[in-house]
Amino acid sequence: MNLLVIGTGAIGSFYGALLAKTGHRVSVLARSDYETVKAKGIHIRSATLGDYTFRPAAVVRSAAELETKPDCALLCIKVVEGADRVGLLREAIGPGTSIVLISNGIDVEREIAAAFPDNEVISGLAFIGVTRTAPGEIQHQAYGRLMLGNYPGGISDRVKTLAAAFEEAGIDGIATENITTARWQKCVWNAAFNPLSVLSGGLDTLDILSTQEDFVRAIMQEIRAVAAANGHPLPEDIVEKNIASTYKMPPYKTSMLVDFEAGRPMETEAILGNAVRAGRCVGVAIPHLESVYALMQLRELGSVKNRQETARPLPPAAWSGGRKS
Amino acid sequence: MNLLVIGTGAIGSFYGALLAKTGHRVSVLARSDYETVKAKGIHIRSATLGDYTFRPAAVVRSAAELETKPDCALLCIKVVEGADRVGLLREAIGPGTSIVLISNGIDVEREIAAAFPDNEVISGLAFIGVTRTAPGEIQHQAYGRLMLGNYPGGISDRVKTLAAAFEEAGIDGIATENITTARWQKCVWNAAFNPLSVLSGGLDTLDILSTQEDFVRAIMQEIRAVAAANGHPLPEDIVEKNIASTYKMPPYKTSMLVDFEAGRPMETEAILGNAVRAGRCVGVAIPHLESVYALMQLRELGSVKNRQETARPLPPAAWSGGRKS
Repeated sequence: MNLLVIGTGAIGSFYGALLAKTGHRVSVLARSDYETVKAKGIHIRSATLGDYTFRPAAVVRSAAELETKPDCALLCIKVVEGADRVGLLREAIGPGTSIVLISNGIDVEREIAAAFPDNEVISGLAFIGVTRTAPGEIQHQAYGRLMLGNYPGGISDRVKTLAAAFEEAGIDGIATENITTARWQKCVWNAAFNPLSVLSGGLDTLDILSTQEDFVRAIMQEIRAVAAANGHPLPEDIVEKNIASTYKMPPYKTSMLVDFEAGRPMETEAILGNAVRAGRCVGVAIPHLESVYALMQLRELGSVKNRQETARPLPPAAWSGGRKS
Repeated sequence: MNLLVIGTGAIGSFYGALLAKTGHRVSVLARSDYETVKAKGIHIRSATLGDYTFRPAAVVRSAAELETKPDCALLCIKVVEGADRVGLLREAIGPGTSIVLISNGIDVEREIAAAFPDNEVISGLAFIGVTRTAPGEIQHQAYGRLMLGNYPGGISDRVKTLAAAFEEAGIDGIATENITTARWQKCVWNAAFNPLSVLSGGLDTLDILSTQEDFVRAIMQEIRAVAAANGHPLPEDIVEKNIASTYKMPPYKTSMLVDFEAGRPMETEAILGNAVRAGRCVGVAIPHLESVYALMQLRELGSVKNRQETARPLPPAAWSGGRKS
């Protein structure tokens, strides 16, 4: 197939490279990394798949530069405030283009499906440890499983073709009838560990779990309840299995924490906000989720205020240091 | 009366000075500020009461240095981990000494009353904006009301004498039959704004309230429910009155945030932990309080880890920067 990968971060670069490896024609839309990727391609260093230099068929700054519309446009950017996903896709797709969204979060497809009602929407969920260490430099640490399915459900021929290509390239490419349920399953882990890693000031998964296991469990159980009430019942043991597997994996720094420490926008709304709104819609009690969501919003506001103060020192509040409370 | 103030922070210095002003014989036990206070006394700058230099009858490093045991020993140190309140008092008091505890928090008297069953325990709650700007230098910004009562209830003659002295010195000195209920009343505000100011990364009261009023309200309502279930019913409108008055006061930086930013221990257990435990005892549902308490414990652990990393850089976690989630 003729493919366009939008975004040359860790996810787009890695999965784009795998598709190129299997003989597909893969172009990339790069923004800040354009010059480097144009000149040198993308170098993948992988512990499990070996090294590979991915030379895209074309490297463009805007999809308008492409001569032909792709069969599939893979949107591989984080779902965060300021990311104009619809705008990026509008330039990239034609009548027959399938839109492939690879990202974290709940209900991230709705906006895209509404904007492009005549295009097939394929939703993808990555389970992988991969990092962009520099422009065009990707370090693949572990895993790689990619789940793919049509939104809101089903498995099309293109889903099968993509999943098969990833399998051929050496990772688990899984076509699923219900990608939305899979998103809720992943959210069980994400909604707990991502925000807690930020609100704790940088703790890894093991520190969080070993000191606040009951709190982690309460958040996970609320996600399971919201998913079920939204028509996506999850296995009864999913919470305990998530906790057990997290104890087994190496102490892990979440992607939200990495973004937070780098001063980048976080996937708070995609992962937590959308889950909270889904819970409110169906009237499920989610006090722990509401608390964590409220605190993440406060934390993001705090970061904005801190940046402003760094930029332009403000006088301390009239009462700064007081003991009224 | 012959009085000893233990602790020359903002609270001990300010209230000790007021008692000296009204003719009581007031000595102080100073630790880090000993040299300065011994040499120059304590200088109070007050917007409402004018300036006053407090020259203690005696300045000691240990209460063992005192010739006579005081009529009242005012313990004016924060209730935090590592503060040996019982040890400080043991050296200071005699058979007839009344112990006066001036501090934030819930159930902070129990340990002291148990350690000194034969001494009168007076519990004090300060509503004041006052700061120790340097050793022996106190800035009084606003308010000053001090509520006093016997623990667990009642009003003794010494409570009346102290309250009258504070009144004479120009602040509201209020003797209350039920200081424990008063502590729950103050906790309604403290349990919400103190932790949120820290977890948000430094927001003031107005930023917190104007963006997360419902969350603040939920925390306050849980404190009211716990207080009621523990035999301390609070006024029905206490939550809305706290919210309305916080909107009216200048943007305020909580004492917990000031301690956090200075790297000092926080009153997390006294203000939040003891309230949570009181709720667990009576089986009241407090999911918002439990969430905030769990996150404050994580935040404190995060600070400890950060200090360790600063002291001795650690290699990044194997997965640092990964995208598994």
